[in-house]
Amino acid sequence: MKGVLYLIPNVISEGGSDVIPASVRSALLTINNFLAEDIRTARRYLSALKIYPSIEAIEFQILNKDTNTLLLPDLMKPIYEGKNLGVISESGCPGVADPGSLAVKYAHDHGIRVVPLVGPSSILLALMASGLNGQKFAFHGYLPIEAKEISKTIKDLERESQAKNQTQIIIETPYRNNQVLDHLLSNLKPSTLLTIAIDITGAGERIETKSVSGWRTNKPVLGKLPAVFCFLA
Amino acid sequence: MKGVLYLIPNVISEGGSDVIPASVRSALLTINNFLAEDIRTARRYLSALKIYPSIEAIEFQILNKDTNTLLLPDLMKPIYEGKNLGVISESGCPGVADPGSLAVKYAHDHGIRVVPLVGPSSILLALMASGLNGQKFAFHGYLPIEAKEISKTIKDLERESQAKNQTQIIIETPYRNNQVLDHLLSNLKPSTLLTIAIDITGAGERIETKSVSGWRTNKPVLGKLPAVFCFLA
Repeated sequence: MKGVLYLIPNVISEGGSDVIPASVRSALLTINNFLAEDIRTARRYLSALKIYPSIEAIEFQILNKDTNTLLLPDLMKPIYEGKNLGVISESGCPGVADPGSLAVKYAHDHGIRVVPLVGPSSILLALMASGLNGQKFAFHGYLPIEAKEISKTIKDLERESQAKNQTQIIIETPYRNNQVLDHLLSNLKPSTLLTIAIDITGAGERIETKSVSGWRTNKPVLGKLPAVFCFLA
Repeated sequence: MKGVLYLIPNVISEGGSDVIPASVRSALLTINNFLAEDIRTARRYLSALKIYPSIEAIEFQILNKDTNTLLLPDLMKPIYEGKNLGVISESGCPGVADPGSLAVKYAHDHGIRVVPLVGPSSILLALMASGLNGQKFAFHGYLPIEAKEISKTIKDLERESQAKNQTQIIIETPYRNNQVLDHLLSNLKPSTLLTIAIDITGAGERIETKSVSGWRTNKPVLGKLPAVFCFLA
Protein backbone atom coordinates (compact mmCIF):
# COMPACT_ATOMS: atom_id res chain seq x y z
CA MET A 1 0.00 0.00 0.00
CA LYS A 2 1.57 3.25 -1.17
CA GLY A 3 1.58 6.46 0.89
CA VAL A 4 -0.06 9.70 -0.23
CA LEU A 5 1.67 12.82 -1.55
CA TYR A 6 0.28 15.80 0.38
CA LEU A 7 0.76 19.36 -0.89
CA ILE A 8 1.24 21.57 2.18
CA PRO A 9 0.72 25.33 1.84
CA ASN A 10 3.02 27.65 3.75
CA VAL A 11 2.34 31.13 5.11
CA ILE A 12 2.98 34.06 2.74
CA SER A 13 3.83 36.73 5.31
CA GLU A 14 5.12 37.11 8.84
CA GLY A 15 1.48 37.55 9.82
CA GLY A 16 1.21 34.26 11.72
CA SER A 17 -0.19 30.83 11.02
CA ASP A 18 -3.90 31.47 11.60
CA VAL A 19 -4.30 31.36 7.80
CA ILE A 20 -3.47 27.62 7.87
CA PRO A 21 -6.67 25.57 8.29
CA ALA A 22 -7.25 22.61 10.63
CA SER A 23 -7.29 20.26 7.60
CA VAL A 24 -3.59 21.00 7.04
CA ARG A 25 -2.79 20.43 10.71
CA SER A 26 -4.57 17.04 10.73
CA ALA A 27 -2.82 15.92 7.55
CA LEU A 28 0.56 17.01 8.95
CA LEU A 29 0.12 14.69 11.93
CA THR A 30 0.14 11.73 9.49
CA ILE A 31 3.38 12.85 7.79
CA ASN A 32 6.93 12.33 8.96
CA ASN A 33 8.77 12.90 5.67
CA PHE A 34 8.90 16.14 3.76
CA LEU A 35 10.30 17.62 0.57
CA ALA A 36 11.09 21.32 0.90
CA GLU A 37 12.87 24.04 -1.05
CA ASP A 38 14.78 25.06 2.05
CA ILE A 39 14.96 22.72 5.03
CA ARG A 40 15.70 25.39 7.63
CA THR A 41 12.64 27.50 6.78
CA ALA A 42 10.40 24.42 6.39
CA ARG A 43 11.44 23.25 9.84
CA ARG A 44 10.77 26.71 11.27
CA TYR A 45 7.29 26.73 9.67
CA LEU A 46 6.34 23.33 11.10
CA SER A 47 7.63 24.37 14.53
CA ALA A 48 5.57 27.56 14.44
CA LEU A 49 2.38 25.52 13.90
CA LYS A 50 2.90 24.06 17.41
CA ILE A 51 1.30 20.71 16.56
CA TYR A 52 4.30 18.46 17.29
CA PRO A 53 5.76 17.64 20.71
CA SER A 54 9.12 17.73 18.91
CA ILE A 55 10.13 18.07 15.27
CA GLU A 56 13.51 16.38 15.80
CA ALA A 57 12.33 13.08 14.29
CA ILE A 58 10.89 14.66 11.13
CA GLU A 59 12.88 13.95 7.97
CA PHE A 60 13.44 16.53 5.27
CA GLN A 61 14.88 16.28 1.77
CA ILE A 62 15.48 19.15 -0.62
CA LEU A 63 13.28 19.62 -3.69
CA ASN A 64 14.02 22.85 -5.51
CA LYS A 65 14.24 24.18 -9.05
CA ASP A 66 17.71 22.66 -9.45
CA THR A 67 16.60 19.14 -8.42
CA ASN A 68 17.46 16.61 -11.10
CA THR A 69 14.38 14.54 -11.98
CA LEU A 70 16.62 11.44 -11.81
CA LEU A 71 16.65 11.94 -8.03
CA LEU A 72 12.86 11.70 -7.78
CA PRO A 73 12.61 7.90 -7.30
CA ASP A 74 14.87 8.29 -4.27
CA LEU A 75 13.02 11.36 -2.93
CA MET A 76 9.69 9.53 -3.27
CA LYS A 77 10.95 6.41 -1.47
CA PRO A 78 8.87 6.92 1.71
CA ILE A 79 5.71 6.65 -0.45
CA TYR A 80 6.73 3.13 -1.51
CA GLU A 81 7.32 2.23 2.14
CA GLY A 82 3.67 3.08 2.77
CA LYS A 83 4.47 6.46 4.36
CA ASN A 84 2.85 9.76 3.48
CA LEU A 85 5.10 12.43 2.04
CA GLY A 86 4.54 16.18 2.28
CA VAL A 87 5.71 18.83 -0.18
CA ILE A 88 6.16 22.22 1.52
CA SER A 89 6.54 25.40 -0.46
CA GLU A 90 8.84 28.23 0.62
CA SER A 91 5.77 30.46 0.47
CA GLY A 92 2.16 29.79 -0.49
CA CYS A 93 0.97 26.70 -2.35
CA PRO A 94 3.25 23.95 -3.67
CA GLY A 95 3.00 23.53 -7.43
CA VAL A 96 1.99 27.15 -8.08
CA ALA A 97 4.93 29.33 -9.11
CA ASP A 98 7.20 26.86 -7.30
CA PRO A 99 9.10 23.61 -8.06
CA GLY A 100 6.68 21.28 -6.18
CA SER A 101 5.11 20.19 -9.47
CA LEU A 102 8.18 18.00 -10.17
CA ALA A 103 7.10 15.64 -7.38
CA VAL A 104 3.42 15.86 -8.35
CA LYS A 105 4.18 14.98 -11.97
CA TYR A 106 6.17 11.97 -10.80
CA ALA A 107 3.30 10.89 -8.54
CA HIS A 108 0.77 10.93 -11.39
CA ASP A 109 3.16 9.01 -13.64
CA HIS A 110 3.47 6.30 -10.96
CA GLY A 111 -0.08 5.94 -9.69
CA ILE A 112 0.56 7.76 -6.42
CA ARG A 113 -2.40 9.60 -4.90
CA VAL A 114 -1.96 13.39 -4.69
CA VAL A 115 -3.91 15.45 -2.14
CA PRO A 116 -3.72 19.26 -2.31
CA LEU A 117 -4.41 21.12 0.94
CA VAL A 118 -6.03 24.53 1.36
CA GLY A 119 -3.87 27.52 2.23
CA PRO A 120 -2.76 31.00 1.24
CA SER A 121 -1.86 31.91 -2.33
CA SER A 122 -0.86 35.51 -2.96
CA ILE A 123 -1.89 35.13 -6.61
CA LEU A 124 -5.43 34.03 -5.78
CA LEU A 125 -5.87 36.49 -2.90
CA ALA A 126 -4.69 39.39 -5.09
CA LEU A 127 -7.15 38.36 -7.80
CA MET A 128 -10.04 38.09 -5.29
CA ALA A 129 -9.30 41.54 -3.90
CA SER A 130 -8.63 43.16 -7.27
CA GLY A 131 -12.25 43.58 -8.34
CA LEU A 132 -11.02 42.75 -11.86
CA ASN A 133 -12.37 39.89 -13.97
CA GLY A 134 -12.26 36.67 -11.92
CA GLN A 135 -14.10 34.69 -14.63
CA LYS A 136 -11.07 34.81 -16.89
CA PHE A 137 -7.49 35.38 -15.73
CA ALA A 138 -3.92 34.33 -16.42
CA PHE A 139 -0.78 34.16 -14.31
CA HIS A 140 2.49 34.93 -16.08
CA GLY A 141 5.11 34.71 -13.32
CA TYR A 142 7.87 37.32 -13.41
CA LEU A 143 8.42 39.94 -16.10
CA PRO A 144 11.64 39.68 -18.09
CA ILE A 145 14.69 41.50 -16.68
CA GLU A 146 15.77 43.45 -19.74
CA ALA A 147 14.05 46.86 -20.15
CA LYS A 148 13.24 46.51 -23.85
CA GLU A 149 11.76 43.06 -23.36
CA ILE A 150 9.71 44.25 -20.35
CA SER A 151 8.02 46.96 -22.42
CA LYS A 152 7.13 44.51 -25.15
CA THR A 153 5.82 41.91 -22.68
CA ILE A 154 3.65 44.44 -20.85
CA LYS A 155 2.18 45.76 -24.10
CA ASP A 156 1.53 42.22 -25.39
CA LEU A 157 -0.19 41.27 -22.13
CA GLU A 158 -2.29 44.42 -22.24
CA ARG A 159 -3.40 43.69 -25.80
CA GLU A 160 -4.30 40.13 -24.85
CA SER A 161 -6.18 41.40 -21.78
CA GLN A 162 -8.26 43.72 -23.92
CA ALA A 163 -8.95 41.14 -26.63
CA LYS A 164 -10.05 38.45 -24.14
CA ASN A 165 -11.32 40.52 -21.19
CA GLN A 166 -8.69 38.60 -19.20
CA THR A 167 -7.11 39.76 -15.94
CA GLN A 168 -3.31 39.48 -16.16
CA ILE A 169 -1.38 38.61 -12.99
CA ILE A 170 2.36 38.95 -12.43
CA ILE A 171 4.57 38.72 -9.34
CA GLU A 172 7.82 40.41 -8.46
CA THR A 173 10.62 39.99 -5.96
CA PRO A 174 10.51 42.74 -3.30
CA TYR A 175 13.71 44.49 -4.37
CA ARG A 176 12.37 45.09 -7.92
CA ASN A 177 8.85 46.24 -6.96
CA ASN A 178 9.33 49.91 -7.70
CA GLN A 179 11.12 49.29 -11.00
CA VAL A 180 8.34 47.00 -12.20
CA LEU A 181 5.70 49.52 -11.13
CA ASP A 182 7.54 52.18 -13.16
CA HIS A 183 7.51 49.90 -16.20
CA LEU A 184 3.81 49.13 -15.77
CA LEU A 185 2.88 52.81 -15.38
CA SER A 186 4.89 53.89 -18.40
CA ASN A 187 3.77 51.07 -20.73
CA LEU A 188 0.09 50.50 -19.89
CA LYS A 189 -2.69 52.69 -21.30
CA PRO A 190 -4.09 55.39 -18.95
CA SER A 191 -7.50 53.67 -18.77
CA THR A 192 -6.17 50.18 -17.88
CA LEU A 193 -7.05 49.13 -14.33
CA LEU A 194 -4.04 48.16 -12.23
CA THR A 195 -4.12 46.41 -8.85
CA ILE A 196 -1.13 46.70 -6.56
CA ALA A 197 -1.26 44.07 -3.79
CA ILE A 198 1.46 44.30 -1.15
CA ASP A 199 2.25 41.98 1.77
CA ILE A 200 -1.03 40.04 1.51
CA THR A 201 -2.12 38.56 4.90
CA GLY A 202 0.73 40.53 6.54
CA ALA A 203 0.79 43.58 8.79
CA GLY A 204 1.62 45.79 5.80
CA GLU A 205 -1.21 44.46 3.62
CA ARG A 206 -2.40 47.02 1.13
CA ILE A 207 -4.45 46.16 -1.93
CA GLU A 208 -5.71 48.88 -4.23
CA THR A 209 -7.06 49.06 -7.75
CA LYS A 210 -6.97 52.30 -9.75
CA SER A 211 -6.66 53.27 -13.37
CA VAL A 212 -3.08 53.67 -14.60
CA SER A 213 -3.70 57.41 -14.90
CA GLY A 214 -4.89 57.43 -11.28
CA TRP A 215 -1.69 55.69 -10.12
CA ARG A 216 0.45 58.03 -12.23
CA THR A 217 -0.82 61.15 -10.44
CA ASN A 218 -0.15 59.59 -7.05
CA LYS A 219 2.63 57.05 -7.43
CA PRO A 220 3.26 55.00 -4.27
CA VAL A 221 6.69 53.94 -3.02
CA LEU A 222 6.26 50.22 -2.44
CA GLY A 223 8.98 49.24 -0.01
CA LYS A 224 10.60 45.83 0.11
CA LEU A 225 7.53 43.63 0.64
CA PRO A 226 6.20 40.83 -1.61
CA ALA A 227 3.98 42.24 -4.36
CA VAL A 228 1.43 40.96 -6.86
CA PHE A 229 0.25 43.12 -9.76
CA CYS A 230 -3.00 42.50 -11.66
CA PHE A 231 -4.27 44.47 -14.63
CA LEU A 232 -7.22 44.54 -16.99
CA ALA A 233 -7.37 46.67 -20.11
CA MET B 1 -14.56 55.87 9.77
CA LYS B 2 -15.60 53.42 7.04
CA GLY B 3 -15.93 49.66 7.60
CA VAL B 4 -13.91 47.05 5.75
CA LEU B 5 -15.09 44.79 2.91
CA TYR B 6 -14.06 41.22 3.80
CA LEU B 7 -14.04 38.48 1.16
CA ILE B 8 -15.15 35.28 2.88
CA PRO B 9 -14.36 31.93 1.22
CA ASN B 10 -16.94 29.16 1.44
CA VAL B 11 -16.42 25.38 1.45
CA ILE B 12 -16.31 23.67 -1.97
CA SER B 13 -17.63 20.25 -0.96
CA GLU B 14 -19.74 18.56 1.69
CA GLY B 15 -16.43 17.61 3.30
CA GLY B 16 -16.81 19.86 6.34
CA SER B 17 -15.47 23.22 7.42
CA ASP B 18 -11.99 22.21 8.61
CA VAL B 19 -10.66 23.80 5.38
CA ILE B 20 -11.68 27.24 6.71
CA PRO B 21 -8.79 28.79 8.69
CA ALA B 22 -8.96 30.56 12.04
CA SER B 23 -8.29 33.90 10.32
CA VAL B 24 -11.70 33.63 8.62
CA ARG B 25 -13.42 32.77 11.89
CA SER B 26 -11.85 35.77 13.68
CA ALA B 27 -12.84 38.12 10.87
CA LEU B 28 -16.40 36.76 10.84
CA LEU B 29 -16.82 37.69 14.49
CA THR B 30 -16.39 41.36 13.50
CA ILE B 31 -19.04 41.18 10.76
CA ASN B 32 -22.79 41.39 11.12
CA ASN B 33 -23.72 42.26 7.53
CA PHE B 34 -23.20 40.03 4.52
CA LEU B 35 -23.69 40.00 0.77
CA ALA B 36 -24.35 36.51 -0.59
CA GLU B 37 -25.47 34.87 -3.83
CA ASP B 38 -28.01 32.80 -1.95
CA ILE B 39 -29.05 33.79 1.55
CA ARG B 40 -30.25 30.35 2.61
CA THR B 41 -26.96 28.58 1.81
CA ALA B 42 -24.86 31.46 3.21
CA ARG B 43 -26.80 31.23 6.48
CA ARG B 44 -26.31 27.46 6.56
CA TYR B 45 -22.57 27.89 5.99
CA LEU B 46 -22.18 30.42 8.81
CA SER B 47 -24.22 28.16 11.13
CA ALA B 48 -22.03 25.17 10.31
CA LEU B 49 -18.93 27.08 11.43
CA LYS B 50 -20.39 27.08 14.97
CA ILE B 51 -18.80 30.41 15.94
CA TYR B 52 -22.00 32.32 16.73
CA PRO B 53 -24.29 31.83 19.73
CA SER B 54 -27.11 32.62 17.26
CA ILE B 55 -27.17 33.81 13.66
CA GLU B 56 -30.66 35.32 13.94
CA ALA B 57 -29.31 38.86 14.20
CA ILE B 58 -27.06 38.60 11.14
CA GLU B 59 -28.21 40.59 8.12
CA PHE B 60 -27.96 39.31 4.57
CA GLN B 61 -28.49 40.98 1.23
CA ILE B 62 -28.35 39.33 -2.17
CA LEU B 63 -25.42 39.99 -4.51
CA ASN B 64 -25.52 37.78 -7.59
CA LYS B 65 -24.79 37.98 -11.30
CA ASP B 66 -28.15 39.70 -11.91
CA THR B 67 -27.52 42.45 -9.34
CA ASN B 68 -27.81 45.88 -10.94
CA THR B 69 -24.73 47.95 -10.13
CA LEU B 70 -27.09 50.85 -9.34
CA LEU B 71 -28.02 48.90 -6.19
CA LEU B 72 -24.42 48.83 -4.93
CA PRO B 73 -24.52 52.12 -2.95
CA ASP B 74 -27.43 50.68 -0.99
CA LEU B 75 -25.80 47.25 -0.54
CA MET B 76 -22.59 48.89 0.70
CA LYS B 77 -24.43 51.13 3.21
CA PRO B 78 -23.17 49.28 6.34
CA ILE B 79 -19.61 50.23 5.33
CA TYR B 80 -20.51 53.93 5.51
CA GLU B 81 -22.04 53.35 8.93
CA GLY B 82 -18.61 52.14 10.08
CA LYS B 83 -19.59 48.46 9.97
CA ASN B 84 -17.63 45.70 8.29
CA LEU B 85 -19.31 43.91 5.39
CA GLY B 86 -18.62 40.34 4.28
CA VAL B 87 -19.02 38.94 0.77
CA ILE B 88 -19.71 35.19 0.85
CA SER B 89 -19.41 33.07 -2.26
CA GLU B 90 -21.76 30.16 -3.01
CA SER B 91 -18.62 28.01 -3.23
CA GLY B 92 -14.92 28.83 -2.93
CA CYS B 93 -13.49 32.33 -3.07
CA PRO B 94 -15.52 35.50 -3.74
CA GLY B 95 -14.37 37.35 -6.83
CA VAL B 96 -13.03 34.23 -8.57
CA ALA B 97 -15.50 32.78 -11.06
CA ASP B 98 -18.27 34.45 -9.05
CA PRO B 99 -20.09 37.83 -8.92
CA GLY B 100 -18.33 39.09 -5.75
CA SER B 101 -16.07 41.32 -7.83
CA LEU B 102 -18.98 43.75 -8.35
CA ALA B 103 -18.74 44.76 -4.69
CA VAL B 104 -14.94 44.76 -4.73
CA LYS B 105 -14.81 47.02 -7.77
CA TYR B 106 -17.20 49.43 -6.05
CA ALA B 107 -15.04 49.39 -2.91
CA HIS B 108 -11.88 50.36 -4.82
CA ASP B 109 -13.73 53.14 -6.64
CA HIS B 110 -14.85 54.58 -3.30
CA GLY B 111 -11.72 54.22 -1.15
CA ILE B 112 -13.08 51.29 0.89
CA ARG B 113 -10.50 48.86 2.25
CA VAL B 114 -10.78 45.32 0.82
CA VAL B 115 -9.40 42.32 2.75
CA PRO B 116 -9.35 38.89 1.04
CA LEU B 117 -9.40 35.88 3.37
CA VAL B 118 -7.74 32.51 2.80
CA GLY B 119 -9.88 29.52 1.86
CA PRO B 120 -10.53 26.78 -0.67
CA SER B 121 -10.49 27.41 -4.42
CA SER B 122 -11.11 24.39 -6.63
CA ILE B 123 -9.24 26.14 -9.46
CA LEU B 124 -6.09 26.62 -7.41
CA LEU B 125 -6.24 23.21 -5.72
CA ALA B 126 -6.68 21.47 -9.09
CA LEU B 127 -3.69 23.35 -10.48
CA MET B 128 -1.53 22.46 -7.43
CA ALA B 129 -2.41 18.79 -7.74
CA SER B 130 -2.13 18.67 -11.54
CA GLY B 131 1.66 18.50 -11.75
CA LEU B 132 1.29 20.72 -14.83
CA ASN B 133 2.98 24.10 -15.25
CA GLY B 134 2.20 26.26 -12.21
CA GLN B 135 4.54 29.05 -13.34
CA LYS B 136 2.18 29.99 -16.17
CA PHE B 137 -1.54 29.20 -16.24
CA ALA B 138 -4.88 30.61 -17.33
CA PHE B 139 -8.44 30.11 -16.17
CA HIS B 140 -11.15 30.26 -18.85
CA GLY B 141 -14.36 29.52 -16.96
CA TYR B 142 -16.88 27.30 -18.73
CA LEU B 143 -16.61 25.98 -22.28
CA PRO B 144 -19.27 27.17 -24.75
CA ILE B 145 -22.47 25.09 -24.96
CA GLU B 146 -22.66 24.59 -28.73
CA ALA B 147 -20.71 21.53 -30.00
CA LYS B 148 -19.04 23.26 -32.94
CA GLU B 149 -17.90 26.15 -30.77
CA ILE B 150 -16.59 23.76 -28.10
CA SER B 151 -14.29 22.01 -30.56
CA LYS B 152 -12.89 25.29 -31.82
CA THR B 153 -12.37 26.64 -28.28
CA ILE B 154 -10.59 23.48 -27.11
CA LYS B 155 -8.28 23.47 -30.13
CA ASP B 156 -7.53 27.19 -29.74
CA LEU B 157 -6.71 26.70 -26.05
CA GLU B 158 -4.48 23.74 -26.85
CA ARG B 159 -2.58 25.75 -29.45
CA GLU B 160 -2.12 28.60 -26.98
CA SER B 161 -1.01 26.13 -24.29
CA GLN B 162 1.66 24.73 -26.59
CA ALA B 163 2.87 28.13 -27.81
CA LYS B 164 3.19 29.55 -24.26
CA ASN B 165 3.78 26.42 -22.14
CA GLN B 166 0.65 27.54 -20.29
CA THR B 167 -1.63 25.28 -18.25
CA GLN B 168 -5.27 25.82 -19.27
CA ILE B 169 -7.96 25.47 -16.60
CA ILE B 170 -11.71 25.13 -17.16
CA ILE B 171 -14.62 24.25 -14.89
CA GLU B 172 -17.89 22.51 -15.58
CA THR B 173 -21.25 22.06 -13.89
CA PRO B 174 -21.65 18.49 -12.59
CA TYR B 175 -24.40 17.46 -15.02
CA ARG B 176 -22.21 18.25 -18.05
CA ASN B 177 -18.96 16.63 -16.79
CA ASN B 178 -19.07 13.58 -19.02
CA GLN B 179 -20.02 15.55 -22.14
CA VAL B 180 -17.15 17.97 -21.62
CA LEU B 181 -14.73 15.11 -21.00
CA ASP B 182 -15.86 13.56 -24.31
CA HIS B 183 -15.21 16.85 -26.10
CA LEU B 184 -11.77 17.19 -24.49
CA LEU B 185 -10.77 13.63 -25.37
CA SER B 186 -11.90 13.91 -28.97
CA ASN B 187 -10.40 17.36 -29.65
CA LEU B 188 -7.07 17.38 -27.77
CA LYS B 189 -3.92 15.76 -29.18
CA PRO B 190 -3.01 12.30 -27.82
CA SER B 191 0.14 13.62 -26.13
CA THR B 192 -1.53 16.53 -24.31
CA LEU B 193 -1.61 16.06 -20.53
CA LEU B 194 -5.10 16.27 -19.03
CA THR B 195 -5.95 16.54 -15.34
CA ILE B 196 -9.40 15.52 -14.15
CA ALA B 197 -10.08 16.85 -10.65
CA ILE B 198 -13.35 15.74 -9.07
CA ASP B 199 -14.96 16.74 -5.74
CA ILE B 200 -11.84 18.46 -4.41
CA THR B 201 -11.68 18.43 -0.58
CA GLY B 202 -14.75 16.11 -0.59
CA ALA B 203 -15.20 12.42 0.20
CA GLY B 204 -15.15 11.60 -3.53
CA GLU B 205 -11.95 13.55 -4.23
CA ARG B 206 -10.05 12.15 -7.15
CA ILE B 207 -7.35 14.04 -9.03
CA GLU B 208 -5.43 12.38 -11.82
CA THR B 209 -3.24 13.52 -14.68
CA LYS B 210 -2.67 11.35 -17.75
CA SER B 211 -2.02 11.90 -21.41
CA VAL B 212 -5.16 12.21 -23.53
CA SER B 213 -4.30 8.86 -25.12
CA GLY B 214 -4.04 7.34 -21.62
CA TRP B 215 -7.50 8.66 -20.71
CA ARG B 216 -8.94 7.45 -24.04
CA THR B 217 -8.00 3.82 -23.35
CA ASN B 218 -9.55 3.98 -19.90
CA LYS B 219 -12.29 6.59 -19.93
CA PRO B 220 -13.79 7.25 -16.50
CA VAL B 221 -17.47 7.92 -15.82
CA LEU B 222 -17.39 11.06 -13.74
CA GLY B 223 -20.67 11.14 -11.86
CA LYS B 224 -22.43 14.33 -10.82
CA LEU B 225 -19.72 15.96 -8.73
CA PRO B 226 -18.00 19.34 -9.28
CA ALA B 227 -15.10 19.01 -11.73
CA VAL B 228 -12.10 21.04 -12.80
CA PHE B 229 -10.13 20.16 -15.94
CA CYS B 230 -6.54 21.29 -16.56
CA PHE B 231 -4.48 20.60 -19.64
CA LEU B 232 -1.02 21.31 -21.01
CA ALA B 233 0.02 20.57 -24.60
